[in-house]
Amino acid sequence: MPAFPPSAPTAEDGLAVFTGAGDLTARLRQDVQSELTRFLARQRAVLAEVSPETGPMLDAVESLLSGGKRLRPAFCFWGFLGAGGLPGPEITTAAAALELFQAAALLHDDVMDDSDTRRGLPAAHRRFAALHAELRWSGSAERFGLAGAILAGDLCLSWSDEMFVASGFDEPALARGRAVFSTMRTQLMGGQYLDMLEQASSALRGREGAVERARRVVRFKSAKYSVEHPLLLGAALAGAPAALQETYTRFGLALGEAFQLRDDVLGVFGDPGQTGKPAGDDLREGKRTVLVALALAAADPAQVELVESRLGDPQLDAEGVVALQTVLTDTGAVAGVERLIDDLVEEACTALEKSSLDETARTALNTLVVAATARLS
Amino acid sequence: MPAFPPSAPTAEDGLAVFTGAGDLTARLRQDVQSELTRFLARQRAVLAEVSPETGPMLDAVESLLSGGKRLRPAFCFWGFLGAGGLPGPEITTAAAALELFQAAALLHDDVMDDSDTRRGLPAAHRRFAALHAELRWSGSAERFGLAGAILAGDLCLSWSDEMFVASGFDEPALARGRAVFSTMRTQLMGGQYLDMLEQASSALRGREGAVERARRVVRFKSAKYSVEHPLLLGAALAGAPAALQETYTRFGLALGEAFQLRDDVLGVFGDPGQTGKPAGDDLREGKRTVLVALALAAADPAQVELVESRLGDPQLDAEGVVALQTVLTDTGAVAGVERLIDDLVEEACTALEKSSLDETARTALNTLVVAATARLS
Repeated sequence: MPAFPPSAPTAEDGLAVFTGAGDLTARLRQDVQSELTRFLARQRAVLAEVSPETGPMLDAVESLLSGGKRLRPAFCFWGFLGAGGLPGPEITTAAAALELFQAAALLHDDVMDDSDTRRGLPAAHRRFAALHAELRWSGSAERFGLAGAILAGDLCLSWSDEMFVASGFDEPALARGRAVFSTMRTQLMGGQYLDMLEQASSALRGREGAVERARRVVRFKSAKYSVEHPLLLGAALAGAPAALQETYTRFGLALGEAFQLRDDVLGVFGDPGQTGKPAGDDLREGKRTVLVALALAAADPAQVELVESRLGDPQLDAEGVVALQTVLTDTGAVAGVERLIDDLVEEACTALEKSSLDETARTALNTLVVAATARLS
Repeated sequence: MPAFPPSAPTAEDGLAVFTGAGDLTARLRQDVQSELTRFLARQRAVLAEVSPETGPMLDAVESLLSGGKRLRPAFCFWGFLGAGGLPGPEITTAAAALELFQAAALLHDDVMDDSDTRRGLPAAHRRFAALHAELRWSGSAERFGLAGAILAGDLCLSWSDEMFVASGFDEPALARGRAVFSTMRTQLMGGQYLDMLEQASSALRGREGAVERARRVVRFKSAKYSVEHPLLLGAALAGAPAALQETYTRFGLALGEAFQLRDDVLGVFGDPGQTGKPAGDDLREGKRTVLVALALAAADPAQVELVESRLGDPQLDAEGVVALQTVLTDTGAVAGVERLIDDLVEEACTALEKSSLDETARTALNTLVVAATARLS
């Protein structure tokens, strides 16, 4: 048991608060899973009317929705509680709808990136392709896989909205929430397009301003929709005052960016057992992350040549991965990103400290900061 | 001026009714366009916040949404008026939302089918790929095109719901409408999956039951979402009684199937100038339509061999197209589909006649029957 200085809360007090928030977050994870399971069972019935052969689509969605850290629902939930809302089935269902939205984004993202795996398992389009091959169907298995995953993603996108609306909130609350929900959807898709465009045009645009451009992509493709918008959705549902919404935005954008930067570092240096994808996958995909932009900004000509010739090479072998990792470390880019993460986490925590949030919500959000940015995830 | 037999309405009466319904349908087409233009301008602003470089996504959507027969909005509108609703911005906006849903389906459909053209212009994924090539960006132009079109479709899917909810109907009406909207979305995607599955597995399953399976795909992939669900959406918004909903279902399923069968015939025999796609495109894609299933059911071994070896061949030349067309005609499949269309149209018209719909709505729907099933479209 650690000793606390006399001015700090007593061990009992501190633990009690922490346990209260932690308990609620853990409970939310379970409740989100139950709500999703129930919702998908209803949809299975709607699809069975078309044909029982639609089963594999439901299976793909169900498998993608089981597990995960449920960070987005947690931010939505605590955004709501922090604004005076009370736990209950309404906020659980609205928060769970974010998981369906996230599933849609992942399904389509994996098709667009042609990824092999997701969370350590074959990506959905690969699973549909395998089904096609296994049953010796005619035509292209790859094309069948692509179509199956696009349709499964379309279902999740439609369902996220259906589940949100059926959450049980009254119409004024839903109307406030819907404004956030709509902005989130449009801006995520805009952010994803911007991301692709940056990957494709980065060589032409050169290194000038590349770090700022990469950070802009992070903001719209990840920070807003992973943290800020879920918090604001909870806030809107609870009818939070403008000052609290501003706190959430400051906290959410800073933490959301840190979360993505941590993901970028793990994508290059992370343990495949932890990240669920093969080592170096992000390097083979040629992602133009802030990490890469920082490296290029500080690289000597030989290092630039190495990055430009190997990054995005689908055949990149273990040796190539190590060579790129070495450039990212030697240029100081890794240390730079770690500093940026630290600064952003501090910015997020300061926003919380300055706010009038009650202690349970603040504790819960501080715990989520750790969960979202820990070096091993 | 045609002469009318004495028992028919007078020329003036008949024309007045016809013109009233026709005027409203024509006016609706214009209003739907204005609503869509206004809605997209607002979304352009939301996306510009991400980056002005997202412009091409808006352009792709806007181009797809300009023109078209607006059949789905018209069915929704007349479903509403037939149930006692009054014309106004609410029903126009709700009906226009169906065009966004249709745009999403087309964008993703063209990616899944790898189609070159849509309405006589390059398909959206080809346009994004051309942009990539023109600007000499790095990476695969094809993959960029695919991703751009998937994201544009995701935007349309999100926006269809956003526009529907913002139509201005009160909450009870919206809640009734949403139930139809949700079923429509889920069952269309299920129907599309079933369609792919049928294409892929038809060779293994053989000819037994193929006509029934093809008709089932038509029902879920086309009939419901093109006619029945738009009508039921209008009915739900107006709070129509169950009897009228049943009329719409009978009318909608019959006409919707006829509409798709006409499209299948035009896809094989239609004038490219009218259909907007190259002659024989459906044959190259290997679509397992009711037309093809009927032909196979009646074909002799040589004809079966020809169909199985050439249908779905991407390299099919003009001679191959003619050879397949000849089988479809000689087996009596074309005549069979035409008979089926006639029967279905009669079934649809009978459902209308037996209903208590007022004369304006009935006239309008009868006109839409012609628009949806005419031999040249």
